[in-house]
Amino acid sequence: MTRLVAIDWGTSSLRGALLDADGKVLEERSDARGILKVPQGGFPAVFEALFGDWMGLEGARCLISGMAGSKQGWVEAPYCACPAGRVEVGRSIIDIDVRPGSRIAIVPGLRDEHDGVPDVMRGEEVQIFGAMSIAGLDEGVFVLPGTHNKWATARKGRVAGFRTYMTGEFYALLSQHSILARTLDADAPLDEAAFLDGVTRSENGHGLLHNAFGTRTLALFERMATPELSSYLSGLLIGEELRTQSLQAAGEVVLIGASALTQRYALALRATGTATRTLGAEATWAGLHALSGFLDADRNPP
Amino acid sequence: MTRLVAIDWGTSSLRGALLDADGKVLEERSDARGILKVPQGGFPAVFEALFGDWMGLEGARCLISGMAGSKQGWVEAPYCACPAGRVEVGRSIIDIDVRPGSRIAIVPGLRDEHDGVPDVMRGEEVQIFGAMSIAGLDEGVFVLPGTHNKWATARKGRVAGFRTYMTGEFYALLSQHSILARTLDADAPLDEAAFLDGVTRSENGHGLLHNAFGTRTLALFERMATPELSSYLSGLLIGEELRTQSLQAAGEVVLIGASALTQRYALALRATGTATRTLGAEATWAGLHALSGFLDADRNPP
Repeated sequence: MTRLVAIDWGTSSLRGALLDADGKVLEERSDARGILKVPQGGFPAVFEALFGDWMGLEGARCLISGMAGSKQGWVEAPYCACPAGRVEVGRSIIDIDVRPGSRIAIVPGLRDEHDGVPDVMRGEEVQIFGAMSIAGLDEGVFVLPGTHNKWATARKGRVAGFRTYMTGEFYALLSQHSILARTLDADAPLDEAAFLDGVTRSENGHGLLHNAFGTRTLALFERMATPELSSYLSGLLIGEELRTQSLQAAGEVVLIGASALTQRYALALRATGTATRTLGAEATWAGLHALSGFLDADRNPP
Repeated sequence: MTRLVAIDWGTSSLRGALLDADGKVLEERSDARGILKVPQGGFPAVFEALFGDWMGLEGARCLISGMAGSKQGWVEAPYCACPAGRVEVGRSIIDIDVRPGSRIAIVPGLRDEHDGVPDVMRGEEVQIFGAMSIAGLDEGVFVLPGTHNKWATARKGRVAGFRTYMTGEFYALLSQHSILARTLDADAPLDEAAFLDGVTRSENGHGLLHNAFGTRTLALFERMATPELSSYLSGLLIGEELRTQSLQAAGEVVLIGASALTQRYALALRATGTATRTLGAEATWAGLHALSGFLDADRNPP
């Protein structure tokens, strides 16, 4: 009986799922031991503690995506160059010989390049493959919000190219470490009107460096209440990100990620007339399941 | 014999100068006790310790600009609305009755408004008046780089309007608190080629949120050396600020501030075909001197 231990091992946390031969999720787990919290040489022990029981099941194999394949991770899996599809990525998985008799492998990330500046992702490529599989798509625009958001374009089942946006990290920096931190409540719930006000403001042509200061002055002159300010800032940032996209030809944008973030992108995109559909963790599991055929010894897809 | 004790009292530091009746600087002083470091009720004591001897001189009067006039400062001096010139600002100075027999007053800042969002400055208006006085101008574009940069337009001797850009604060946040901090040396000396590379890159239409991530990947793929990365990031930020300006009609841009910053703006502006001239602290002293006529009891200019 085939089992896949599917793991998305990120920088600050990890998630795992036990999948059956059809990719059905039998059980899910998560843990706070992202790669930055694992001591040097400590990956085998953390892996065994978290997933040893699953790996002991008959026919169990394991595929790991995300930052575990980075230089700072468990074993480095060199990036695949775009355009890259399931075949290119699947043939580049890197084995980890840590558990006698068990097949454990790491999925490489992708790299792209824009006028001499590289761009990288690790883990999102698996989510995109999974989303294409779930939605029955072989092309489209995929947005993966997070600390470092990804906008990827797929054609013929492959990731044609992508760009990273530091939107999530800018929000954290501004709301926690800047002059705005004095008046903002970074954890206030989403205020849709203030958020959309920020999205609209971001299109005024004066840029984020200027518009962000408005979050300060709106508070200073008591034009906006504290619970609204963080949503306004979030709208300024996400609006700034959307401003630079060419969405005319996109049709529908596929959002993949945690609902607290995808909800905001959906709001902003719909406000600019772009339809969206949203997927969560199921995209990761579907993507790892889709790649699991490459765990066969000859590295040919099933 | 008339003497003016001219003080620019900012958030994190202050500077003072003793001027003669013609505005000539006789002596300068600076101190780290910006308004955030003065305990509640502590302004008179700090003032006396730093400037008591100058105030004891025959005919000495004092004008203070900057954040000392803010809500968190010594005495609040409400903002003057733009357009505002020397007369509007001079007539709005606020007396501080702290030293019997001595005239001490605080210069108000300016406020502007853009589609319902206020903007503010405190201290820069004095530097602009001083620059106009020194350069014999009654109009122009004035740029005052700093944590919160100001771009102001003057017409007929008055500040017609202005906008604030958080460029300096974004640089500090990104170079000290973001993922870029791992590979950047925020204090590396200016590398002109890398800086101008960043300025050019900022014009690619993909926005700061994307381009900033390039500072990470250029380091990751060893395409740019550590000493160059901070200059590249600085170029991205200043380029982003310039991108949103309408400089066609500006002719010459007047830069006012510390040379470490004005030098970068001059480089970036010249690269885009805009001439610059640069002024330093002398603009502050000339501006306070120009306003000192309003220290007469009837608040009419000399």
